[in-house]
Amino acid sequence: MRRTVYFISDSTGITAETIGNSILTQFEGVQFDKHRLPFTDDARKAEAAALRIKTLYAKTGERPIVVNTMTDPALCEIVAGSGALMLDVFAPFISPLEKELGAKRSGAVNLSHGMVDFEKYEARINATNFALTHDDGMDMDYAHADLILIGVSRSGKTPTCLYMALHYGVSAANYPLTDDDLDRLELPSRLLPYKDRLYGLTIEPQRLAQIREQRRAGSRYATLKQCNWELQQADKLMRHAGIPSLNTTHVSIEEIASKIFDRFGIERTMF
Amino acid sequence: MRRTVYFISDSTGITAETIGNSILTQFEGVQFDKHRLPFTDDARKAEAAALRIKTLYAKTGERPIVVNTMTDPALCEIVAGSGALMLDVFAPFISPLEKELGAKRSGAVNLSHGMVDFEKYEARINATNFALTHDDGMDMDYAHADLILIGVSRSGKTPTCLYMALHYGVSAANYPLTDDDLDRLELPSRLLPYKDRLYGLTIEPQRLAQIREQRRAGSRYATLKQCNWELQQADKLMRHAGIPSLNTTHVSIEEIASKIFDRFGIERTMF
Repeated sequence: MRRTVYFISDSTGITAETIGNSILTQFEGVQFDKHRLPFTDDARKAEAAALRIKTLYAKTGERPIVVNTMTDPALCEIVAGSGALMLDVFAPFISPLEKELGAKRSGAVNLSHGMVDFEKYEARINATNFALTHDDGMDMDYAHADLILIGVSRSGKTPTCLYMALHYGVSAANYPLTDDDLDRLELPSRLLPYKDRLYGLTIEPQRLAQIREQRRAGSRYATLKQCNWELQQADKLMRHAGIPSLNTTHVSIEEIASKIFDRFGIERTMF
Repeated sequence: MRRTVYFISDSTGITAETIGNSILTQFEGVQFDKHRLPFTDDARKAEAAALRIKTLYAKTGERPIVVNTMTDPALCEIVAGSGALMLDVFAPFISPLEKELGAKRSGAVNLSHGMVDFEKYEARINATNFALTHDDGMDMDYAHADLILIGVSRSGKTPTCLYMALHYGVSAANYPLTDDDLDRLELPSRLLPYKDRLYGLTIEPQRLAQIREQRRAGSRYATLKQCNWELQQADKLMRHAGIPSLNTTHVSIEEIASKIFDRFGIERTMF
């Protein structure tokens, strides 16, 4: 079974898409074709969206699904005119919250992915720059690092650091364990002062070899033998040094970040 | 007025946090203290969460708010025992969807931020690597770029490219306009074959000077005069070449990305 889903929003559409995807993954038998209709913030755009949805409905005979975060009831009504199943993301929560807080919602356009707080936003950009300059052991001045990921080359350190910086403003550095470190089974001395901020990423050797092969086909670096050796040594090194670690083979960046924050007690909320 | 909010989830907590933040920004008069309680996926963890919430309630006398995406009703009940206002994110949408689709929800733990699809995940990592190697004009082989951001140094190109790659698997390169380009008011010849994939980022001169000053205090690079000149020339260059552009001064990375995708008709959904 296939169904078409529209994520419709007066802003970026990120909230609609996030919750929509979460709900849709709970219906595993259905294939969803997903479309974003962001910045639907006036009657003309709402009418264009309604026409598009209605046209598809007429063509396929399958009722489209709309996951909606527009706040203006007039715009919602226009889109509802398409005949789609309307799932209004905010409606169910506003009334219990108004009652609990004794305050009315502002009715403003969803601000959550806009630039609400300039300082917070700057922290996020600065953290991203930090991640970029402290990537792959390039700059090893870790005094301002919130945390430092270690692991062998291609174990997932860089994307994880970038994600934590972009979304949480966490200044995350990363250090790739070198053959020299792995031979000696010791951390480089410049990392030792920051031992309590270290976290290790590991990965299954087959998967690592596959990733490295894509990058440098036919190299010694990509052989299963080399990957096995590096990962075994890295594992020993981390265990000796008492550094917590996570196998990232079947774990997404979001999950890695959540687990690391959990471990370090970082409850910072996302931007 | 202050209220404490817990984002509680059997997975990363990202969905709970995203929708929770969206709803809470609609109550502008209230200060919310936010906490994430991810991976609450068994009775022991749910009881620990309930105890923590109950204890805070008893201490402050203010009823805490729980934004919940746990799927197991038994765990929800345990947390509800804390007396908090429970906002269950999925409940309102499941029954209309079950009816519409004629199918029952799977009841599985929220998979939307896990590694559901290996190939898609790889596309995302590859796009991130692409953004990193095609940052700041380092690698200028743009044949595989989905789009290329241009603009003066520090106009927001790098974080935007990384965001688009990490979240949408879009291979975005960026090219910083050089003094030479700005003098000649011409794009470098290597960009010309890809003119229809170019998008310009601009920024207000005062803001740019402030950002550059943080980076290289007292430099000519950071003077308002230099920023003014660069931005005026960049604006002329983009207008002459017919390249669409966006002023990023008051716009978040999420909004920039959404607007660029909208312009290029990229409807790719996020990971």
